[in-house]
Amino acid sequence: MQRQVWRLVRRPQGDIRDGDLEYGTESLPPLADGEFLVEVIYLSLDPTNRIWMSDMEQYMPPVAIGAPMRGGIAGRVTQSRKAGVAVGDIYAGLGEWASHIVTDGTMLQQMPAIPGVSLAAAFGTFGVVGPTAYFGLLDIGQPKPGETLVVSAAAGGVGQIVGQIGKLKGCRVIGIAGGADKCRWITDELGFDAAIDYKAEDVGAALDRLAPDGIDINFEQVGGAIMDAVLKRMKLFGRVALCGMIAQYNLADGAADPVPGYWTMMLMRRLTVRGFIVTDFAPRFPEAMMALGQWMASSQVKTRQDIRQGLDKAGEHVKLLYSGGNFGKLLVEVSAP
Amino acid sequence: MQRQVWRLVRRPQGDIRDGDLEYGTESLPPLADGEFLVEVIYLSLDPTNRIWMSDMEQYMPPVAIGAPMRGGIAGRVTQSRKAGVAVGDIYAGLGEWASHIVTDGTMLQQMPAIPGVSLAAAFGTFGVVGPTAYFGLLDIGQPKPGETLVVSAAAGGVGQIVGQIGKLKGCRVIGIAGGADKCRWITDELGFDAAIDYKAEDVGAALDRLAPDGIDINFEQVGGAIMDAVLKRMKLFGRVALCGMIAQYNLADGAADPVPGYWTMMLMRRLTVRGFIVTDFAPRFPEAMMALGQWMASSQVKTRQDIRQGLDKAGEHVKLLYSGGNFGKLLVEVSAP
Repeated sequence: MQRQVWRLVRRPQGDIRDGDLEYGTESLPPLADGEFLVEVIYLSLDPTNRIWMSDMEQYMPPVAIGAPMRGGIAGRVTQSRKAGVAVGDIYAGLGEWASHIVTDGTMLQQMPAIPGVSLAAAFGTFGVVGPTAYFGLLDIGQPKPGETLVVSAAAGGVGQIVGQIGKLKGCRVIGIAGGADKCRWITDELGFDAAIDYKAEDVGAALDRLAPDGIDINFEQVGGAIMDAVLKRMKLFGRVALCGMIAQYNLADGAADPVPGYWTMMLMRRLTVRGFIVTDFAPRFPEAMMALGQWMASSQVKTRQDIRQGLDKAGEHVKLLYSGGNFGKLLVEVSAP
Repeated sequence: MQRQVWRLVRRPQGDIRDGDLEYGTESLPPLADGEFLVEVIYLSLDPTNRIWMSDMEQYMPPVAIGAPMRGGIAGRVTQSRKAGVAVGDIYAGLGEWASHIVTDGTMLQQMPAIPGVSLAAAFGTFGVVGPTAYFGLLDIGQPKPGETLVVSAAAGGVGQIVGQIGKLKGCRVIGIAGGADKCRWITDELGFDAAIDYKAEDVGAALDRLAPDGIDINFEQVGGAIMDAVLKRMKLFGRVALCGMIAQYNLADGAADPVPGYWTMMLMRRLTVRGFIVTDFAPRFPEAMMALGQWMASSQVKTRQDIRQGLDKAGEHVKLLYSGGNFGKLLVEVSAP
């Protein structure tokens, strides 16, 4: 049995470059007892992929040089030597950038079919981005009716959901995204109150115009200059959910944090800043799935996937995340759903 | 009726200098209906005094140029035209750096005598520093048994109480203070597990030795290089209670925050950083006073005041806070208790 797989062969310095990842074909050993084979349907590409490639301080061990690249996957069982796992079952969880994976089921969960929701939407939402948006906004952001919420990377996988939950909670929601299409989509389709196109306008000036009284909640996903502009405009008792800093992951290892310290401001304005990783909330994932499932079923939360074809192009597709090239949750279709 | 009073005549640039505050004598008008006259016994000098003198962003309006300097006071009613307020009553709260104040009672509360607790200890503890320590540590720090707590300015008014509450909650407590006397006092008298003399040793190296596994809770009072050393050693899921940054208040207005941003670290380690001002918790002050009163009565929490003589020297005494010259809660005895 042969598979295609991406391996990390060199840690990126700055942007991911050709040659950091290597695509190839290899043989898989026969299944051992207790194992099963999953044919990957979707590979999830996420900002955190870049973190896993580096040996910076992070929340799980980096991918070892020479090892298969780690990634979220959804796929179909095609062989099984594990009791209770049947050919045809759909499993999703943490896997590899590969056409097939051999697993004993650790890090994977069976995925029930949800009527009316495609596998791409279900995997794209429930896997990582939905719980990230749900817990980051509700637990850390603690939105109250009438408050002003700013979310960056607003048309991305997490941002689109954050803004819609914010609206459900009665907030005034301002999304920051790149390009007129994305800005139109989050306001016209998703119901955000306003959008700032960071490629076309000065974010600070736009925030001054759209949120003259300041910002209660910042759902931070990008870092860098955009984060800086938002932080400076936080209101008394504001909350900052530090979810990601995609503009900073590609800094060469050891580079200084580009956003300065605002310690005195945090004190004077009594801000709460809290970093989190979605897995911190793992025991409560069912709560997020229940809520999101209901909101999606009633169309109160809409989701958009950006599905790209071909595992062999995954090394190119992943770069979209750092250039703002994706529009919706980025997935690679590895085999037909 | 004449009184002595300090007025702010110039905003300090950097350290407080002679001429920023001016001491003088002035006449008080007769009491109006609903007012009473308080003869000040104790003036509380607190790090935040420096903030009030500047026009930096802050949590209440700065003292106006030419106005009496604001400060916490405790005193005795010597004349009253307000129903329910009797000559001889003891009142405490926010007043002025003055020998007497005329007030309608706004910002002041009557202070009951507590058997076995001197007015200096009661005013010094219950007024500001006790609630600051209590809410900052318990609400924001959320100490759990076995965790490592670091408190800076550990022999000061707030720090001494933070460390002792930390011990009551089962933490390993490391205090940072200046000088052997203070370090000996917090370990030998107050029961801190360890002390770091920042004047004699490298704080980072000492933390590496005393807390090799890192720090769960930082009760931050000083900012600058000491804060930097502590932040770098925060543990996964650590909490930072931003209570004060005394090393930074004397920076010239507009100077950049000397501690860099640690946003990526906050995310990766899932830190929570929260700024607070004690008045945020005002509705819950009785809770703090109940708990502190019981701990003090049972000697589980000991407090030390650093009582200096003479209102006319207040402009000198206040500088002790920024040079680390006080040992315990700094009070000025304005008249005999």
